[in-house]
Amino acid sequence: MTEEISDSRLPNKLGFDELAAKVTSAPFHRWMNLRLLALNERDVVIEMPWRDEIVAEPTIGYAHGGLLATLIDLTADYAIAAKLGRGVPTVDMRVDFHRPALSGPLRTTGRVIKLGRTLATAEAWVVDTAGKLLASGRATFIVAT
Amino acid sequence: MTEEISDSRLPNKLGFDELAAKVTSAPFHRWMNLRLLALNERDVVIEMPWRDEIVAEPTIGYAHGGLLATLIDLTADYAIAAKLGRGVPTVDMRVDFHRPALSGPLRTTGRVIKLGRTLATAEAWVVDTAGKLLASGRATFIVAT
Amino acid sequence: MTEEISDSRLPNKLGFDELAAKVTSAPFHRWMNLRLLALNERDVVIEMPWRDEIVAEPTIGYAHGGLLATLIDLTADYAIAAKLGRGVPTVDMRVDFHRPALSGPLRTTGRVIKLGRTLATAEAWVVDTAGKLLASGRATFIVAT
Amino acid sequence: MTEEISDSRLPNKLGFDELAAKVTSAPFHRWMNLRLLALNERDVVIEMPWRDEIVAEPTIGYAHGGLLATLIDLTADYAIAAKLGRGVPTVDMRVDFHRPALSGPLRTTGRVIKLGRTLATAEAWVVDTAGKLLASGRATFIVAT
Repeated sequence: MTEEISDSRLPNKLGFDELAAKVTSAPFHRWMNLRLLALNERDVVIEMPWRDEIVAEPTIGYAHGGLLATLIDLTADYAIAAKLGRGVPTVDMRVDFHRPALSGPLRTTGRVIKLGRTLATAEAWVVDTAGKLLASGRATFIVAT
Repeated sequence: MTEEISDSRLPNKLGFDELAAKVTSAPFHRWMNLRLLALNERDVVIEMPWRDEIVAEPTIGYAHGGLLATLIDLTADYAIAAKLGRGVPTVDMRVDFHRPALSGPLRTTGRVIKLGRTLATAEAWVVDTAGKLLASGRATFIVAT
Repeated sequence: MTEEISDSRLPNKLGFDELAAKVTSAPFHRWMNLRLLALNERDVVIEMPWRDEIVAEPTIGYAHGGLLATLIDLTADYAIAAKLGRGVPTVDMRVDFHRPALSGPLRTTGRVIKLGRTLATAEAWVVDTAGKLLASGRATFIVAT
Repeated sequence: MTEEISDSRLPNKLGFDELAAKVTSAPFHRWMNLRLLALNERDVVIEMPWRDEIVAEPTIGYAHGGLLATLIDLTADYAIAAKLGRGVPTVDMRVDFHRPALSGPLRTTGRVIKLGRTLATAEAWVVDTAGKLLASGRATFIVAT
């Protein structure tokens, strides 16, 4: 979606170090060895290294789709969190699986689509080290406190 | 959805032991300590015990939504697999988060909505030990080989 | 989804005539010639007759998927409305298209999945006169006023 | 999503006049008075004028969400059709409703996310005359013949 139409260019309330600390505060994110790679006014980029336990199918050895969905959920959430200064509960999520994830690290970019007073929508996509699109999706979050 | 309209009552090609072996063949499913709890002509039921690494937020201590999405993806997939005799790649998924998952085990039921020649759709839902609905969703799978 | 787990059996605040009046209050519903066919504590059933303008592809002559999506959106909404006594804005929607809709009338059933204080989720599915499943889906609605 | 990662810059097989003719070949698209506004290697833009029958709620007078979903479905489809030279059946769709549509014309932009050999994914978004985002979403299509 073009940036002119989305709310992806709203100013951030969190700096890089603050958001990086949020990313690693979740026990499951620590298990995934996530780290914040980049944060600017438009994008949040999070990287996950490969680990053997994430495999769904041992012959071909691709990563579990549920973990790609997890990356999309959390990176879309942090795209909202960067704008609001706090994380928000996910209401629902859509994920499209484009290619099997065969090696890492997996890099996920999140971007705000619409930041409302009650709800917000953000999108995210996962690429491999060659920049190939593995999965993409969008999620709705509750913003009202 | 009523069973009369869905394809949830088609005969199974996999027995309990065969499907149970598939469930634990995935390294990530072993990490999740999944086990097949029940299989009949309509439902696949899979249970995941709690483990501390699945927590998303350490103060309240609820499980990561990405893992609920993972449970919905894989249980919907096994509902198709039971009918076809083989697992199928997920095309896309929708997940709704209804309540935070605060303790385990988490029990997920999967059921076929439509089994086509090219694509199939199945739904799944996650409940806690009190039977409260935590998350639900549906996914599309490629059936054509 | 099993009724024991969903909120589909909560008591209704609207009777048949009240809901039927709501259905036909919308200009677009009148264009679609919608009518309420059944209302009970679990299901809302709405019927749409065929009309030539709904066709998407003139050679085969199937109905536009957008109209099946419309039926799912509005029938899921009325499943919530029956419980709450008022219609609710749709937040987002997922629709799966299972078979082309080649003739009418089209019958859509809606059912509540989860009725929360802030948000609600409902599902709906469209069948043809032979009872064949044409489309199904789910939507999230804002309940808080 | 960034264009570098999506398949939105693949060459088109249809020119403007060919795609414009496809848009108006569908009876429902003629009822909607759709017209192709722009086609380039990245975007398909389709415009729908207001008409009184599209209203969902007569007091405020906003357009039916099902018609915004219809616009997203068909414009995403034409984004794929421009690349392939032919329309493709929709498998499933996700739509997010951001703001009520209070006046027309409604302008919808479609863009390819991933063009595979079996399936394709495209996104689309609807704006009002002020450029405000009303709805956005994505859909999966069958590409294999």
